[in-house]
Amino acid sequence: MPTSSSDLRPKSLTVPADSRTYDIDFVSLAGVPAHLRTLGLHGPNVVIVTDENVAAHYRSPLVHAFEADGWKPHVVVVPPGESSKSLERLEMLYDTLLPIGLERSTPVCTLGGGVVGDVGGFAAATLLRGVPLVHLPTSLLAQVDSSIGGKTGINHAVGKNLIGSFYQPHGVLVDPETLLTLPAREWINGMAETIKHGLIADAALVAYLDEHLVDILGHHSLEATVPAIRQAMAVKARVVGHDEREAGKRAYLNFGHTFAHAIEQVAGYGTVAHGEAVAIGMRAALYLSWQRHGDALDRERLDTLLTRLPLPDVSHLDFDALWTAMRHDKKTKDGRIRFVLLKALADPYVADDCAKPAVERAWDFVQQSPA
Amino acid sequence: MPTSSSDLRPKSLTVPADSRTYDIDFVSLAGVPAHLRTLGLHGPNVVIVTDENVAAHYRSPLVHAFEADGWKPHVVVVPPGESSKSLERLEMLYDTLLPIGLERSTPVCTLGGGVVGDVGGFAAATLLRGVPLVHLPTSLLAQVDSSIGGKTGINHAVGKNLIGSFYQPHGVLVDPETLLTLPAREWINGMAETIKHGLIADAALVAYLDEHLVDILGHHSLEATVPAIRQAMAVKARVVGHDEREAGKRAYLNFGHTFAHAIEQVAGYGTVAHGEAVAIGMRAALYLSWQRHGDALDRERLDTLLTRLPLPDVSHLDFDALWTAMRHDKKTKDGRIRFVLLKALADPYVADDCAKPAVERAWDFVQQSPA
Repeated sequence: MPTSSSDLRPKSLTVPADSRTYDIDFVSLAGVPAHLRTLGLHGPNVVIVTDENVAAHYRSPLVHAFEADGWKPHVVVVPPGESSKSLERLEMLYDTLLPIGLERSTPVCTLGGGVVGDVGGFAAATLLRGVPLVHLPTSLLAQVDSSIGGKTGINHAVGKNLIGSFYQPHGVLVDPETLLTLPAREWINGMAETIKHGLIADAALVAYLDEHLVDILGHHSLEATVPAIRQAMAVKARVVGHDEREAGKRAYLNFGHTFAHAIEQVAGYGTVAHGEAVAIGMRAALYLSWQRHGDALDRERLDTLLTRLPLPDVSHLDFDALWTAMRHDKKTKDGRIRFVLLKALADPYVADDCAKPAVERAWDFVQQSPA
Repeated sequence: MPTSSSDLRPKSLTVPADSRTYDIDFVSLAGVPAHLRTLGLHGPNVVIVTDENVAAHYRSPLVHAFEADGWKPHVVVVPPGESSKSLERLEMLYDTLLPIGLERSTPVCTLGGGVVGDVGGFAAATLLRGVPLVHLPTSLLAQVDSSIGGKTGINHAVGKNLIGSFYQPHGVLVDPETLLTLPAREWINGMAETIKHGLIADAALVAYLDEHLVDILGHHSLEATVPAIRQAMAVKARVVGHDEREAGKRAYLNFGHTFAHAIEQVAGYGTVAHGEAVAIGMRAALYLSWQRHGDALDRERLDTLLTRLPLPDVSHLDFDALWTAMRHDKKTKDGRIRFVLLKALADPYVADDCAKPAVERAWDFVQQSPA
């Protein structure tokens, strides 16, 4: 991996999947219509699902690009945030899109972050039993994580992401310049998952972030960010590629997530952002791993990388409350809490035999050495 | 194919599909729980989606069979008929099933006809991004047609089946004895599709029906019916097997359907049953085929088979109204109406160049020689 690059359009990546293999390409928004044609997709109709925040910046440029290329774009704008991952919003998408004369060949493009990709992707998966889906992720988190892997879905009162499909897109088109309008906290969220991909699978990415994370977070430098994005995408593509339906190693993507879900719940949803919670959860998971494997894991160096993210103080969260939340997580089976741990950097495994005192010591460490 | 059989449990059939290959097995309802275990499915929870009519006959026996085998069955009953293929009903299924502690391994069984299979199948396809689905088709139409091929879905105000998934079941389990409670008109609907499968792909099935249709319809004899069901299923399995997403030969299953959709619409939905309309549509399509291919097609013999079905009189339907409806069908492209025609028995193709006068002559024939 180059340690610096002025190339904002690196080479494409391939995501191998049983149901459909597709590429991740670096394409400017202006180049999206022509790129869709190279994917074998055609108009005149094309659907763009986006949210209000993203629409304010990128709706007009993308619509104009499509129109200039001879397409007839139909834009559906949903409110930003998790509340749009609802059956009600999905019904609105159906009611809006079916009357336009949608055909089975009409592409649906999701323009935005994870929420837009999830609800727009689920609509694409189920309209006419499936129309072509193209993700145009504009957030760092969507670019390095949620746009890759074919998960679509909505929430239910019983829990998050309980309704949905595994539905692979025809393509993921990334324009890094859309990051320039991203709020600072979204950079932290996205870099938390980027670091995670390095920790579970790519020592070179971790080394790159050791050197460049401060520049990325401090200056939002695309030259520094794009190589990290591409490597993080490559990890995600590799992990999900041959585990489309989450049977095996896809579980490693949950590194840091056992604590993270508990932190989000105990702190109160919306208080701690998901990426922040994952970063804190990774610190705890690194400590748990180090207790088992000792110096095979250079814990201090990796912890230092994580603490370069500006993370909220969660030292007030009570361990017993976190433990109870972890025991009730949907991934817990027969009361055995599952953690992804590292034997060494980039060598993850799933453990369901972590004793409560060891888990508590990991939390004590996080409490006593705040980021 | 045997011309008669006292075996109501013939050998299983395999449906090859890219996403999941599965078997159609002849199993009594009492044997369903044990059979699910041979498919690798396990409880304790199992979901049964059925409708009020079917529940009246088979809910208790199936529930008791599951309980006796150590399962914990959860039954959801929907009203009979197309109105249950709605987003509202789907939401009711989500709201009922998510709180029971559904896991990704919990099987959903659809017990009933096409509507139950479609809405229950779509729920299974989308709960937790897909749980195991097993169809227990109890109607002749569901057994020979709708339970095979992985189509699930619901209707929308804009049209039928516009929302859904292609989602292959883990298995289709057929108990022919459930046909004994089927209303007579449902036998006609099911036999229309059975004849269709013979006409497009199986001359031996047509010969069998030449000999046995009267006995099947007159006495609902299972000995006579089961061999026909199995052969019709084999046709459907073969046709959909390698055309999971309707790219090619799956279109042949629409034999008779161009006229049928127009007849249902012009007569007023619900007046002429779908199978009846398909039978009448096949008579017209046979006549259209014969105009092109002459005596390569033994039209009179095949027409005689169709007229053994007690069909409603539709001679009052105006051709111009039917023509207009056909031109507006969703399968019509650029005003070119698509018909499936036969060059000869079991040798279908798609034609989009039938001139209006030829189509009108076909309708004249149907009008002047009512079944």
